[in-house]
Amino acid sequence: MKVNGERFLADLHRLREFGAAGVGKGVVRPAYSEADIAARDWLAERMREAGLRPHFDPVGNLFGLADGPSLLMGSHSDSQPEGGWLDGALGVIAALEVARAAQEAGGPAISVVSFQDEEGRFGVTTGSAVWSGTTPLETADSLTDRDGISFAEARAAMAGRAGDFLDPAQFTGFIEMHIEQGPVMDTSGEKAGVVSDIVGIRDMRITFTGQQNHAGTTPMDLRRDAFQAVSRYNTLINERFRNVVTPRTVWTIGHVALHPNASSIVPGRATFSMQWRDGDSDRLGRMEQIVRDTAEEVAKEMGMELAFGPMLGLEPVAMDARLRAALEAGAEAVAPGNWRLMPSGALHDATNVSRLMPVAMLFTPSIGGISHAFEEDTDEADLVAGLQVLAEAVDRLG
Amino acid sequence: MKVNGERFLADLHRLREFGAAGVGKGVVRPAYSEADIAARDWLAERMREAGLRPHFDPVGNLFGLADGPSLLMGSHSDSQPEGGWLDGALGVIAALEVARAAQEAGGPAISVVSFQDEEGRFGVTTGSAVWSGTTPLETADSLTDRDGISFAEARAAMAGRAGDFLDPAQFTGFIEMHIEQGPVMDTSGEKAGVVSDIVGIRDMRITFTGQQNHAGTTPMDLRRDAFQAVSRYNTLINERFRNVVTPRTVWTIGHVALHPNASSIVPGRATFSMQWRDGDSDRLGRMEQIVRDTAEEVAKEMGMELAFGPMLGLEPVAMDARLRAALEAGAEAVAPGNWRLMPSGALHDATNVSRLMPVAMLFTPSIGGISHAFEEDTDEADLVAGLQVLAEAVDRLG
Repeated sequence: MKVNGERFLADLHRLREFGAAGVGKGVVRPAYSEADIAARDWLAERMREAGLRPHFDPVGNLFGLADGPSLLMGSHSDSQPEGGWLDGALGVIAALEVARAAQEAGGPAISVVSFQDEEGRFGVTTGSAVWSGTTPLETADSLTDRDGISFAEARAAMAGRAGDFLDPAQFTGFIEMHIEQGPVMDTSGEKAGVVSDIVGIRDMRITFTGQQNHAGTTPMDLRRDAFQAVSRYNTLINERFRNVVTPRTVWTIGHVALHPNASSIVPGRATFSMQWRDGDSDRLGRMEQIVRDTAEEVAKEMGMELAFGPMLGLEPVAMDARLRAALEAGAEAVAPGNWRLMPSGALHDATNVSRLMPVAMLFTPSIGGISHAFEEDTDEADLVAGLQVLAEAVDRLG
Repeated sequence: MKVNGERFLADLHRLREFGAAGVGKGVVRPAYSEADIAARDWLAERMREAGLRPHFDPVGNLFGLADGPSLLMGSHSDSQPEGGWLDGALGVIAALEVARAAQEAGGPAISVVSFQDEEGRFGVTTGSAVWSGTTPLETADSLTDRDGISFAEARAAMAGRAGDFLDPAQFTGFIEMHIEQGPVMDTSGEKAGVVSDIVGIRDMRITFTGQQNHAGTTPMDLRRDAFQAVSRYNTLINERFRNVVTPRTVWTIGHVALHPNASSIVPGRATFSMQWRDGDSDRLGRMEQIVRDTAEEVAKEMGMELAFGPMLGLEPVAMDARLRAALEAGAEAVAPGNWRLMPSGALHDATNVSRLMPVAMLFTPSIGGISHAFEEDTDEADLVAGLQVLAEAVDRLG
């Protein structure tokens, strides 16, 4: 097949016009907003023009269906409250162009999808989570956004378009192209990243409770300062993780809340988030043991009470070997020696879809690693290169 | 003179009834509240009964004046929003009893004061700050409380009682008794603490600005995590201060604000408070140099932008040698070998009054070191012991 880079870029720019906002190429197109629904209606029409049959399911996921068994490709077209023009949109429009080129070439059969609410106005990857059975529809319906609007109310705005949930058995696999949303390829100068796995996540809140005291009248040796416990814990974790992690492992203390959080009061309580991500379940488990042991050691050493919150756990998802090999061959054809195999540190719709069928992912570089911001961008030559990798992969899958 | 412990305790319990609240011996009597004004009217009447001439100044400071030149004694009778029964009240009622006993004994001349808004509904030690010239009245008048009420509006509630500001030249010195508000004497079992000096304070906000990033897609070696900078700074400060401090020096990071403070985002900015207290100005200066040098070193090492907020500086105040010696002699007479010389880590009205006349302070123990809480308390035998130390000291001053 022969993909058309100009047509692809024109469609990508056209999609940005729905919710175009902010500086640069910013987009405001949250799930179920007027801009989002208008964009999906436009996409449905472009699918029809490409020879695909548009189909909305009950939660607003939009499919463009080829006849018979087909390979599904796509991503999502909703955006962050203040998002960029490529996050999700790139994967949808690239899939549209590949499906269109395949129709023009007389095969293979490629279907397209734009999942709904990947950006989590209500949950996280809500549309694909419901379709895949990860989240029951009744559970999703009771989720509310920041303004108290429920998922059930929001999706009612698209009820007139909705058919049934699709049977996933008609799809032979799912390929999602996405921007990297990190700085790795922008730093290395590589043109494409074939995803090895989507990392697993562990996330928990930890609370140290010491003794709130006057910051003037309490001698240092009589203090039980909860911030000092957090700082000590952080220092120890950084040392101890070094023995078990790989260069791809990440960990973050992103949230810290001191009580009462005043300059003249020794903090009596500190709650903080501890999150770690890795592609290997065993390693995630070993890290959890270090997290728990270290917190207990610090609590004992510094006279703190210790409480662990419930742990959020998402398992790593390995990419399908056959689909991944096709992407690797495509990448080598388009950018010989200038692509990499890499994990996805972020969640994607592919995580959910992996419950239904084989999945694989392709990354394009993100300038400065910036995403979830108006400034998000990628060189258009790199976007087209990514499209060509997809086409090469599809050709190989036959 | 002969002080009456029962009469003193009865007055102390009677004062608690104004604003009595909460569990145990809690008090809610913030400055200019109905309870505060009623308590001051009652105090004025008790002063009159004791042979003193009550006088309110324009900001609500209440004096009970002896004839001729006199020694001033007292503290404050306003409380924290949720306070205890002794913080301030103890010093006022003890002064009343000593002045009353002195009147009964035919001398010496003791005047009494209850300063207004020591607890800082509007500023910090506002009443004594205005009287001493530390804070100009116009500046104080523009201060507002948490509800947006100005000091000018609040003090208007007492305007009908107000006379002029008193000439401080009529007072030969000022002695303030106060609860320790710390755990030192409760830990050691001592009965009284003669204050050597009120420590100086340095307080500033420090901000590290790194790079806000996705906590999944940003490798550890490409992060500029502002929380990591705070933790590193804290570790280094704790090491480096050890070389310059004494066991009485204290330092605190009591406030930390991360941005955006979310578990899945590498913090791009961290603002935190750095406060340190010591009785020696030179040491405070050496510590400031370490604070600034260490922050700059961490910023350079970790690729952070660094900003220092304005520094709040209050100089240490040494107690007057003659008044302090009288308190020491009194303490030794009442609790031989069972008292200590100690700094005050907290601010007190005496800090302001030291601009006008010689000052000294006496501490009584605080059970568990607790203050600014309903649970604040002291054994009544220790309260009476403190009263006796004051009487012994006044006898010696003649």
